Amino acid sequence: MDRLKKQMDFILEIDKEKQINRQTYIADGSRKENDAEHAWHMAIMAILLQEYATDAVDITRTIAMLLVHDLVEIDAGDTYAYDETAKEDQEAREKLAAERIFGLLPEDQAEMMHSLFEEFEEGKTASARFAKALDRFQPMMLNAAAGGKSWKEHGVHLSQILERNKNTARDAKPLWEYGFKEYVKPNIQEGNIKNE
Amino acid sequence: MDRLKKQMDFILEIDKEKQINRQTYIADGSRKENDAEHAWHMAIMAILLQEYATDAVDITRTIAMLLVHDLVEIDAGDTYAYDETAKEDQEAREKLAAERIFGLLPEDQAEMMHSLFEEFEEGKTASARFAKALDRFQPMMLNAAAGGKSWKEHGVHLSQILERNKNTARDAKPLWEYGFKEYVKPNIQEGNIKNE
Repeated sequence: MDRLKKQMDFILEIDKEKQINRQTYIADGSRKENDAEHAWHMAIMAILLQEYATDAVDITRTIAMLLVHDLVEIDAGDTYAYDETAKEDQEAREKLAAERIFGLLPEDQAEMMHSLFEEFEEGKTASARFAKALDRFQPMMLNAAAGGKSWKEHGVHLSQILERNKNTARDAKPLWEYGFKEYVKPNIQEGNIKNE
Repeated sequence: MDRLKKQMDFILEIDKEKQINRQTYIADGSRKENDAEHAWHMAIMAILLQEYATDAVDITRTIAMLLVHDLVEIDAGDTYAYDETAKEDQEAREKLAAERIFGLLPEDQAEMMHSLFEEFEEGKTASARFAKALDRFQPMMLNAAAGGKSWKEHGVHLSQILERNKNTARDAKPLWEYGFKEYVKPNIQEGNIKNE
């Protein structure tokens, strides 16, 4: 029962991810999205959109990475994509968080979690590259659905979006092209994304 | 682009699952859990707890079923586990919902979604039986964490929990034994679960 107790301690601890809010709003703009909802949404997207990955992905591993990659934010907090100051110590904060949170699990499963988290962070394998592409594409869809609110609130520039999405085009070209045409472009025209 | 547009219409539509509240509270009792959070939590549980399934599961299929089985509630609403009146027409309501929501997808993927949903509902395969065991076990864990609040609010009787969990013991025995000892029993003692 000691093994199961450790697993359940971890499973109860990660309930806190439901209270880590992101800067993105849910589609109707009524409130911010939390990390658990974001991960769930992307896991389904991975199943449906895997055909657009530049290199074939291991779908089970891709889903697992998407489900767990934000767990470190329970301790480290959400780091907004365009907050350059917060991003400076993000890696150090998240490394400590991974030690504590994954460390609740039995050793073999703690190692599995570390390996999924690190694979995602390194972004080298085809599965990790596609998972990261979805991690950039999903908020783009929601930001557009919510009327560009989040881009506007943070004064986001087109150049920041283009810089952040260099690899979205590389790893999931049809998604980037669709996103640019359907989500980004109309929001430049409406002035929600700055372009100077 | 027509195929991708259909996929994205579906993906945006299912954002609504983030606003379908369950009767279960998140662990700290501060608010109710929604369907998207519930699905995310169980998908991770499936990865970590698959070793307790009575019969070996196909983990990818188990996760996929857990991620999508509540999508029908976008139209059909959440049906509380112990609401016998609402359960009478639940199947009919959910069938209609499945037609509309999965019907947004390209035909091959609509079929895949129907097949996942039906496999879960029928509960015959090892993967579906384990997924359903988690669907009963996860709220038990949260109800206990939140001080038995949800059981108390609904005046739940031990006999209802035992009846509902007949198959939890069959399909994931160690989880049922752990849940009974750690979650149910203390809440009988505290009077949150009725036992007469």
